[in-house]
Amino acid sequence: MNYKELLEHAHQQIKPYIHRTPILTSSLLNEISGAEIYFKCENFQKMGAFKMRGAANAILNLSEDQRAMGVVTHSSGNFAQAVSLAAQKIGIPAHIVMPENAPQVKKDAVKGYGGKITECFPSIEVRQKTADQIIKKTGAAFLHPSNNLDVILGQGTAAKELLEDHDNFDYILTPVGGGGLVAGSALAANFFSKACKVIGAEPKEVDDAYRSLLSGKIESNESTNTMADGLRTNLGDINFPIIQKYVERLICVEELDILEAMKLIYQRLKIVIEPSSAVPFAAVLRERNFFAGKKVGIILSGGNVDLGKLPF
Amino acid sequence: MNYKELLEHAHQQIKPYIHRTPILTSSLLNEISGAEIYFKCENFQKMGAFKMRGAANAILNLSEDQRAMGVVTHSSGNFAQAVSLAAQKIGIPAHIVMPENAPQVKKDAVKGYGGKITECFPSIEVRQKTADQIIKKTGAAFLHPSNNLDVILGQGTAAKELLEDHDNFDYILTPVGGGGLVAGSALAANFFSKACKVIGAEPKEVDDAYRSLLSGKIESNESTNTMADGLRTNLGDINFPIIQKYVERLICVEELDILEAMKLIYQRLKIVIEPSSAVPFAAVLRERNFFAGKKVGIILSGGNVDLGKLPF
Repeated sequence: MNYKELLEHAHQQIKPYIHRTPILTSSLLNEISGAEIYFKCENFQKMGAFKMRGAANAILNLSEDQRAMGVVTHSSGNFAQAVSLAAQKIGIPAHIVMPENAPQVKKDAVKGYGGKITECFPSIEVRQKTADQIIKKTGAAFLHPSNNLDVILGQGTAAKELLEDHDNFDYILTPVGGGGLVAGSALAANFFSKACKVIGAEPKEVDDAYRSLLSGKIESNESTNTMADGLRTNLGDINFPIIQKYVERLICVEELDILEAMKLIYQRLKIVIEPSSAVPFAAVLRERNFFAGKKVGIILSGGNVDLGKLPF
Repeated sequence: MNYKELLEHAHQQIKPYIHRTPILTSSLLNEISGAEIYFKCENFQKMGAFKMRGAANAILNLSEDQRAMGVVTHSSGNFAQAVSLAAQKIGIPAHIVMPENAPQVKKDAVKGYGGKITECFPSIEVRQKTADQIIKKTGAAFLHPSNNLDVILGQGTAAKELLEDHDNFDYILTPVGGGGLVAGSALAANFFSKACKVIGAEPKEVDDAYRSLLSGKIESNESTNTMADGLRTNLGDINFPIIQKYVERLICVEELDILEAMKLIYQRLKIVIEPSSAVPFAAVLRERNFFAGKKVGIILSGGNVDLGKLPF
């Protein structure tokens, strides 16, 4: 199958496991930004984030035999919940490696969805090692949160829905963390729109994707000092070439931009989003002239926040 | 016209000025509560609360001559915004008397909707006196936030929509502050449903309505120590007889109940509500046995919160 067929297949097979999320607009936010914005509310998605799409697609693409042995992932957040819930609904075990310092609300959610948590020291190396041990013991299939083509294709279905529900977008914006959402969205826009381009929005504090596109090789972040806790991860060798080929550009935003955008979305759309979700709207506000008069889709990636730690 | 015709007329004439707000459900909140709950999202209403309905209806029922002289109200919050926005859309001046200590976010909103603010000392007597002075000077028509039949009928249209969109409700719950919403909803349920009863939910800290129903006369609150800042007002002589006749019962809830219900709505529905909106869901959780297995509509009255002052 080519990318177009793969996206169609992904969308078809995950439909019983996901919500077709609503799309909100606000005349006031259009006025403030100067653009015509359609917010795709993946914060209303099952388990509260778009990650449900990629997790379901990746599990459904495993063979019967593979599924029987279960799946394993390492994630501090939404992908852990997504794999847990998708596995539960499909009826297979899910092993989740989580850093000890992950927010309690996220650990509780994983448990609530039936995921089996193994806690580990919070470093990328130790996480992977812990996952490897589980794979050796159980034969479970490893699912990477973003550097996995089935995951990327699943994530692309949110943009596909946006393009089905509204015509003639100039741009779709997504946040960029591990790169799965922006890569999948760029594939969807390329194969399911006339001329819509995908732009990634990234916190300046973790601008690895921006620097990677400049240098032509995968760069890493030296610190992860952003409130957008879902975007602290790095690109991978599967999504990076897709991003290089299909993503129009990346826009970096400051922490204060994110805070301001997040506040406006809470105040005006009256919905709960996590800080990562505010990054694309922050990019539209920052590049007002670029987006003036344009029709813009924004993927609000998720709504799983620790309410006691809201940044305002 | 009888009440039924008045409600139909109100709904018809305010339609161009309001949103038909969405109704949300959550399988998890149904599981937690044991009831089947439909949340009517008046937090997504224009200016962020159901008050838009009553304000628009009251203004539209004024004569041309009355409208030309404008309207005046005293309100610390949502009704002030509602009158400002409705007056702006209808093209007449709105004078708003606000206590000096009203939250800045509410003052800014009133100004944003074109209302002319007169600040006054925060007491009910001084508010009314200030409004009276404006009436003398301008000839503006006074609109009471809740003790006005046209306002009550306008507020009732939210329950009417709920009853149009879903069948066979056992109960509709609303918060009780000044009594306009619960009275209007009770009229709507009486005239537009087979057997749906309306229940009011009230913070124990401001249980004037509860005590009024017990004693048979309008009681007042000695303190207003509740986080549900929209519910600190008292019943009036126009809505009280309607409440006595048509409201099934009132349920009082503790502050901790409100906090818990509010948190669940933020976490699970992923929407922004003000504390007053959480009071009916708190009542359902508190009286779990009473509501078990029942089909319940809840009017989420508004979403105008000061984000810096969320109670969690």
